[in-house]
Amino acid sequence: MTPAITHKLPDHAVPVPLDKAYRLINHGPTVLVSAAHGGVTDVMAAAWACVLDFTPPKVTVVIDKATFTRGLLEASGQFALQLPTRAMARLTTGVGTDSARDVPDKLARHGVSLFSPPACQVPLVQGCVGWLVCQLIPEPHNQQAYDLFIGEVTAAWADERVFRQGRWCFDDAPDDLRTLHHVAGGYYLVSGEGVQA
Amino acid sequence: MTPAITHKLPDHAVPVPLDKAYRLINHGPTVLVSAAHGGVTDVMAAAWACVLDFTPPKVTVVIDKATFTRGLLEASGQFALQLPTRAMARLTTGVGTDSARDVPDKLARHGVSLFSPPACQVPLVQGCVGWLVCQLIPEPHNQQAYDLFIGEVTAAWADERVFRQGRWCFDDAPDDLRTLHHVAGGYYLVSGEGVQA
Repeated sequence: MTPAITHKLPDHAVPVPLDKAYRLINHGPTVLVSAAHGGVTDVMAAAWACVLDFTPPKVTVVIDKATFTRGLLEASGQFALQLPTRAMARLTTGVGTDSARDVPDKLARHGVSLFSPPACQVPLVQGCVGWLVCQLIPEPHNQQAYDLFIGEVTAAWADERVFRQGRWCFDDAPDDLRTLHHVAGGYYLVSGEGVQA
Repeated sequence: MTPAITHKLPDHAVPVPLDKAYRLINHGPTVLVSAAHGGVTDVMAAAWACVLDFTPPKVTVVIDKATFTRGLLEASGQFALQLPTRAMARLTTGVGTDSARDVPDKLARHGVSLFSPPACQVPLVQGCVGWLVCQLIPEPHNQQAYDLFIGEVTAAWADERVFRQGRWCFDDAPDDLRTLHHVAGGYYLVSGEGVQA
């Protein structure tokens, strides 16, 4: 069910200091959520992820009870949010549509390649431009009533071609590296031009 | 403290059906939060707003205890999220930086014009391209521990030049109408090109 996992960081992936980690999702991208338990990994898409705090950095993400990923997250207490690119729009829609309950080879089918940095227990998705590893902060009422999960970010990486000195800078990089912002039905807006106010 | 409020809808503002209201912020824009109580209105900027549910539509927004807007929201039980445009980047940074505690003429100083549709008790900001009026769902633990507020959307409007048939479509409209996605320090990415996967 789970593709082979390398321990090598992707080319261009560099650590992001924890006090800047919130900036990876401050601009509201759609994310891939990964979680693993008992040797099984799943990855799903989520448009409803958000920063919750600066330091320690915390995030929220809404994960439906029907998803397979949710069970892995609840069992392991860990998850990752990561930012797919324009080049990964089809992959993102694919893992957001199929469930591993019905499609056991879901990850392979949609071309998901995984890596796991040393000491990181959640496999991460190759090709993304940002990765946030999170420890679940259990809040049973939020999880049951709203499908809302809170995590504290414990490690983060970003692709140095588009995230440098704590900021996204897409304008001088290939368009394929821009992040995705889901509108509906597999239609996305990519992250656009930078504006200083 | 509060500028004059017209009851006339802005040109191009049309109602959005509640089952499509979540789509106004599904792509992760930075929002303006408005709230009013006792004849006083405030508006602040928030990058940490997110969809929580489809139907009835619910949203989350993180509002710091130091903000003046938070007191109005807690007193009235209502608030609005609205989407400023590229043309409003300076206004957005301005109302996100100054507090009405220290700058009583904050709204006038930053050029905020308000309107209030009939039966809507929260003044809304002119020039935005989407407006969501929300009823607070009280969750004292989330509000105290995380500054996290949950609202149910009770009415929504959007600018028909860029939101039609339940979807954003910026590519054939003036660039000044694109939404803002805050990175840091008054630097935003605007909503970019549409991609169908």
